Amino acid sequence: MLNWYLQSGKEADVVISTRIRLARNLDEILFTTKYSLSDAEKIIQIFGNIIPSLPYELKLLKLKDMDYITKLSLVEKHIISPNFVTEENETKAILINEEENICIMLNEEDHIRIQVLASGLDLENTLGLAVEIDEKLANLINYAYNEKYGFLTSCPTNVGTGLRSSVMVHLPGLTLTSNINKVLEVVNNFGMNIRGVYGEGTKSQGNIYQISNKQSLGISEEEIIKNLKAITDKIIEQERLARKYLAKNAIELEDTVCRAYGTLTNCKKISGEEVKRLLSDVKLGVDMGIIKEITDYKIKQLETFTKPANMQKYLGTVLDGYDRDIKRAEVIQKIINE
Amino acid sequence: MLNWYLQSGKEADVVISTRIRLARNLDEILFTTKYSLSDAEKIIQIFGNIIPSLPYELKLLKLKDMDYITKLSLVEKHIISPNFVTEENETKAILINEEENICIMLNEEDHIRIQVLASGLDLENTLGLAVEIDEKLANLINYAYNEKYGFLTSCPTNVGTGLRSSVMVHLPGLTLTSNINKVLEVVNNFGMNIRGVYGEGTKSQGNIYQISNKQSLGISEEEIIKNLKAITDKIIEQERLARKYLAKNAIELEDTVCRAYGTLTNCKKISGEEVKRLLSDVKLGVDMGIIKEITDYKIKQLETFTKPANMQKYLGTVLDGYDRDIKRAEVIQKIINE
Repeated sequence: MLNWYLQSGKEADVVISTRIRLARNLDEILFTTKYSLSDAEKIIQIFGNIIPSLPYELKLLKLKDMDYITKLSLVEKHIISPNFVTEENETKAILINEEENICIMLNEEDHIRIQVLASGLDLENTLGLAVEIDEKLANLINYAYNEKYGFLTSCPTNVGTGLRSSVMVHLPGLTLTSNINKVLEVVNNFGMNIRGVYGEGTKSQGNIYQISNKQSLGISEEEIIKNLKAITDKIIEQERLARKYLAKNAIELEDTVCRAYGTLTNCKKISGEEVKRLLSDVKLGVDMGIIKEITDYKIKQLETFTKPANMQKYLGTVLDGYDRDIKRAEVIQKIINE
Repeated sequence: MLNWYLQSGKEADVVISTRIRLARNLDEILFTTKYSLSDAEKIIQIFGNIIPSLPYELKLLKLKDMDYITKLSLVEKHIISPNFVTEENETKAILINEEENICIMLNEEDHIRIQVLASGLDLENTLGLAVEIDEKLANLINYAYNEKYGFLTSCPTNVGTGLRSSVMVHLPGLTLTSNINKVLEVVNNFGMNIRGVYGEGTKSQGNIYQISNKQSLGISEEEIIKNLKAITDKIIEQERLARKYLAKNAIELEDTVCRAYGTLTNCKKISGEEVKRLLSDVKLGVDMGIIKEITDYKIKQLETFTKPANMQKYLGTVLDGYDRDIKRAEVIQKIINE
């Protein structure tokens, strides 16, 4: 079974991935802003005990036992949040399966954050699995829940459903046709957030944006993903229209795409930033049928294994920044040629 | 027999070509600044008559009978000067052989300009052939010659030997190590000119420079080329030292060279300017053994057939600027892949 981020998903020409996150807290323990070290350890203990009752073949990993590169590699794969790693790790843990599409973070901003990921656009199934996990957990532990407000969370913005649903989209067409800012504005007006790939406050890299719901209170889980689905469908349509427009000036587009491919296949050293920029062009070329030499699967490998920590995992060695740039060129050419 | 500019020459890693030019005038006709249209036509007539007496299989071509692209293609190959084409063509003609290494221009700044070209560094043989042609002509026509000053010419700077000897050198190493300006200065101090590839007042393109003698009076032909040879040998040595220095940081150099190769082999449109820049890197890579896929012969083809007029001759079609950029990419990839 391939890891989720290497699988092919639906609407994969525009939508890279789907993510569902449910924020939950235990009723009998103070929230993370107020609780003690022993409270945090108790949570990990509770989950250690209930793992065998869950059918997902989850492994409990304490962050303090993981090396830095392994932790960073999970951030690069969008499986855990950057803050979860950079803050002190003493009390943090994750429950994760082999496919890496299920990851429950313990002692993040909330006691429990259930996360389910999928390749491409797959909001219904992803929510379905998250809800299933949530219900199984609810049979084993007591959630902090209020009849009027719903699930209680550390941050008021998550109160209610505790649901954050998001999709990661690749929008090179809208960028190249200078329509991207108009689209960002419309998405905001529809009550959605749109931002860089590592969440709030980060910039877009390689024309990749994350769209997610703002509201989690006074609205059902189904409505939340219905709204997100509607806006995502609209963006897919606009992005495809932009690509059709670009295809009219075929030579310009082919030139951009093929030069990017030529640089990736010939360079002897390359930064992660440049790879993101060039891969955006190459992915556009593959999705539009301009580049036939490489598959969508290879694009996914390139996206994953050119990031610093994943590259070091892939190569099985620790490398400094300069050597990484050289090895990155080798990794790219190895993946393309194999 | 290959045209001279496609042949392999000596010291070809640094020296692209050698050129000898002898300026001569007929004794019985006024200089070009003063003469009449019928004088000019008389000169062409004289040469038409003496061609059969010369052993070089020269053809007489009148510029007014040549199409613009053919004339421009000769300029691009450095066989005739840009001014010779852009000024009015009514009275201008050339005598040229199949190999294109001999070209006698009629009614340029002087009545007669004997030119001999060779690939690589070959001053002695090139001068030898020019002198041989000159002597054969001297048996058939009367030169304007003064016992005290030597050959008389339109411009005082050419009086004496009438000789301009020059070599075209490729100096990417000295450029990349930022030593080029120091070298330009030294060459000037040694009584030589160093300038862009299309002669006086033009800028360097693709790190190519033309070095030539300033003095033509009070010095023998042999001394002129001995001095030019000495300074060229010094430049070759300095350029090779610079390349050795660059080779110490192999990855940086390989990256520059291979990226240039990647762009040339993948682009779908490209300007002549960009090709010159990239070809300089690729030629350096070929000369330093970094790129083994292509030969020196292909580099020479690429240098020649990517220039606007030669490209149109190569393709056998007339193209406007935008189409040229597209066809240029095709020509490059055809030459590399064949």
